[in-house]
Amino acid sequence: MNIAVYGAGAMGRLVAEGLIEDNRFEFVGMIDRRGSGEDIYETLDSISQNIEGIIDFSHPGNLDELLSFAKSRQIPVLIATTGFTGEEIEKIETAAAETPVIFTYNTSLGVNLLGELVKKMAGALGTDFDIEIIEKHHNKKLDSPSGTAKFLLDKVAEGHKEELSPVYGRNGMAKRERNEVGVHAVRGGSIVGEHSVIFAGEDEVIEIKHEALSKKVFVRGALTGINFLKDKKNGLYTMKDVLGL
Amino acid sequence: MNIAVYGAGAMGRLVAEGLIEDNRFEFVGMIDRRGSGEDIYETLDSISQNIEGIIDFSHPGNLDELLSFAKSRQIPVLIATTGFTGEEIEKIETAAAETPVIFTYNTSLGVNLLGELVKKMAGALGTDFDIEIIEKHHNKKLDSPSGTAKFLLDKVAEGHKEELSPVYGRNGMAKRERNEVGVHAVRGGSIVGEHSVIFAGEDEVIEIKHEALSKKVFVRGALTGINFLKDKKNGLYTMKDVLGL
Amino acid sequence: MNIAVYGAGAMGRLVAEGLIEDNRFEFVGMIDRRGSGEDIYETLDSISQNIEGIIDFSHPGNLDELLSFAKSRQIPVLIATTGFTGEEIEKIETAAAETPVIFTYNTSLGVNLLGELVKKMAGALGTDFDIEIIEKHHNKKLDSPSGTAKFLLDKVAEGHKEELSPVYGRNGMAKRERNEVGVHAVRGGSIVGEHSVIFAGEDEVIEIKHEALSKKVFVRGALTGINFLKDKKNGLYTMKDVLGL
Amino acid sequence: MNIAVYGAGAMGRLVAEGLIEDNRFEFVGMIDRRGSGEDIYETLDSISQNIEGIIDFSHPGNLDELLSFAKSRQIPVLIATTGFTGEEIEKIETAAAETPVIFTYNTSLGVNLLGELVKKMAGALGTDFDIEIIEKHHNKKLDSPSGTAKFLLDKVAEGHKEELSPVYGRNGMAKRERNEVGVHAVRGGSIVGEHSVIFAGEDEVIEIKHEALSKKVFVRGALTGINFLKDKKNGLYTMKDVLGL
Repeated sequence: MNIAVYGAGAMGRLVAEGLIEDNRFEFVGMIDRRGSGEDIYETLDSISQNIEGIIDFSHPGNLDELLSFAKSRQIPVLIATTGFTGEEIEKIETAAAETPVIFTYNTSLGVNLLGELVKKMAGALGTDFDIEIIEKHHNKKLDSPSGTAKFLLDKVAEGHKEELSPVYGRNGMAKRERNEVGVHAVRGGSIVGEHSVIFAGEDEVIEIKHEALSKKVFVRGALTGINFLKDKKNGLYTMKDVLGL
Repeated sequence: MNIAVYGAGAMGRLVAEGLIEDNRFEFVGMIDRRGSGEDIYETLDSISQNIEGIIDFSHPGNLDELLSFAKSRQIPVLIATTGFTGEEIEKIETAAAETPVIFTYNTSLGVNLLGELVKKMAGALGTDFDIEIIEKHHNKKLDSPSGTAKFLLDKVAEGHKEELSPVYGRNGMAKRERNEVGVHAVRGGSIVGEHSVIFAGEDEVIEIKHEALSKKVFVRGALTGINFLKDKKNGLYTMKDVLGL
Repeated sequence: MNIAVYGAGAMGRLVAEGLIEDNRFEFVGMIDRRGSGEDIYETLDSISQNIEGIIDFSHPGNLDELLSFAKSRQIPVLIATTGFTGEEIEKIETAAAETPVIFTYNTSLGVNLLGELVKKMAGALGTDFDIEIIEKHHNKKLDSPSGTAKFLLDKVAEGHKEELSPVYGRNGMAKRERNEVGVHAVRGGSIVGEHSVIFAGEDEVIEIKHEALSKKVFVRGALTGINFLKDKKNGLYTMKDVLGL
Repeated sequence: MNIAVYGAGAMGRLVAEGLIEDNRFEFVGMIDRRGSGEDIYETLDSISQNIEGIIDFSHPGNLDELLSFAKSRQIPVLIATTGFTGEEIEKIETAAAETPVIFTYNTSLGVNLLGELVKKMAGALGTDFDIEIIEKHHNKKLDSPSGTAKFLLDKVAEGHKEELSPVYGRNGMAKRERNEVGVHAVRGGSIVGEHSVIFAGEDEVIEIKHEALSKKVFVRGALTGINFLKDKKNGLYTMKDVLGL
């Protein structure tokens, strides 16, 4: 399967390496408008080889070009870029009617399993337990909280029997509201990525934590994902579908 | 519901306090052969009030008296004592044909939920992830690993697709076997009880942890359990049934 | 040593119990303007027995009465109340010229040792490592972050070679500033109190964590503290002095 | 400074890369009797360039050749190999009279700082707190517990006021002895290396934890170490000297 990688940043390069090492795939080039170097192209059109799948770890500004290219040739796309607006997410959903698409905040097996678990736990424990989320990332990360923390918050909200309202830090005199969910973004050093969901009840606390030890875990998930799309019908898929959870 | 408590140790006394404070119940006495004091009796027969349920936090030596009393009057029993032999567990199962019985290693909601989660995770991740269990308790605990750690190990084994073999510590030169499960018992200070199940994979680690902050959490679960048995048919029930998991 | 307890809340009552159980001390009463009950008095003057020490776990509004009583009779005072203004803290410092005073945010041995350790670590690692603080408390706590988190932040700042600026949560697009210290207040269930200081560097993270398992740990420290003041000269002492760190 | 690397395993190769990228150093070759490839030599003698320092991440079997070469030419050596016998360690100590030597179980700044902290804590808390060590490493590690865990155990013993006896796991009926130190080796997935020292007291627990996020942290420390030896007199040094702790 010939795969192009959108984005020649740290993640894009790792995905390219992963594709080269994996004999299910052929790596055909990276797309980066501002970048240059071997195997880097300005647009998808500049790649001469036939493209059979695209993995996107770039930024929202590339969405239109990415989707229009993929739709016009019915090429499967895995989008793992974060920071989209609601309007952009709708564009992704619309495009999925014309080509197979996976849209995900986090390609790791573990995080997606975590999402299912915290949804179930929020359903079983929610009304008696307080829920808080802590995430930790390196000091160069721009967005807080992480896309994955937002994904976990969404999962908690899906499972919970009552409406929840997130707070992103606490400073001053104010007791915790019953359905508040504290979301705490720790930043420091070169931490790859850690997410923890805490269920704190009367006299007991349950914590479920995921730690990424290396960005390779996201590469592995991305390759599994694009491979999954190979013979699929048009439509919007999630990592949950990929993993058969 | 008139409840007798078998065992006048730390847990028995807390259960008695819990029964007194809870208006669903009437506390009728504690049984302790060696103990003495207000509300403490040598045998169940010495309690003059009608007994409608028994909660047992004592030791395996009392099992025969407990079961024969309960069977003869068809009184529901919740057994939360640990350290039974296989033969004794069979006696409990047999007795359950004649009176409603809950037999559990841990009465807390959280631990029982944990059991279900790790079973599911072992099924989903097991063949790609290594599983290890760490438990922490106070320095007066006699048995290692804890009954709850054994319960979690059983749950992991139930969910896992392959046969597992536990090891209880590592010292020397020996690589981890594929289906080995390390079970580590930490002892110190007045730690109430912490259990952690670790799923360690290639480049990612998931940990699911339960911490008991006070023994009251076990009281609450025991009261929920005995209340659940009130109008039940004869049979052996688990906390999973109580919690509707 | 005859000890009065200022404040008849949860902590005050535990201190009273601790005094009664400890044969170094005689408990002579609790002061609570709004409270009533056995051993509860409206003012220190209403206690007929001779007072040889006062432990204060009440609120800043009582400070003037407390200090004027203690100064007038040269009675040692341990103040473990939190939430004072800068002006009130000055009053405590001034009063300490006339009677022995311990003023502390946290009476536990462990937390005070932690303070010394994080000061040393901030000195040794600070310019290469990013520092973040996470604290966790029960859902009824009014102030965020905790007094102890502020104490730890002060200790980190004392040890660090550069000026630090705390942030109390992160939400939006903004990279961590070099000398930022994130302080995160988690609230939930009945968590007694947990404080963690994280030093995150390039490819390594050090975390130093204190967990209080029961409020009794604060009682023990308070009794050690008031006992320490017994034959001391007038002056302002800290738990660091008490513990001989 | 021209540096040779003894051992062409994973760590040796990373050190070589680190030397190449760092303009304080010139990389002159790796020594590996069984290995082959570019820049790999069978013996130190086969390297034609002048050697001004040697970093050893190999195995105990190379010790004699390494020391005799270094002594004969008075070349500084940093030995970070683990698994030496007591006799071999004596050889290192003897050789240090004739050339500058650092011998260390772990070259990371953080772990060595941890060593100093736990020594101090064991001195301050030891007689009232129980101490336990947990370490976590990948599933390919051969030795348990890790050399670093043994180093931390030594540091705890240095600081502690009483004699300690380690246990490497618990299984069965046996209460924790007062001066027992549980050392627990967790193995799984690709965990780089985590060490945690727990001080568990009455109603409080302090935990101090180090996590290596990548093996690069050991490279950085090794380069700082060999650079430190540049103009030093003959003698045995530790990472503590290097770090100025």
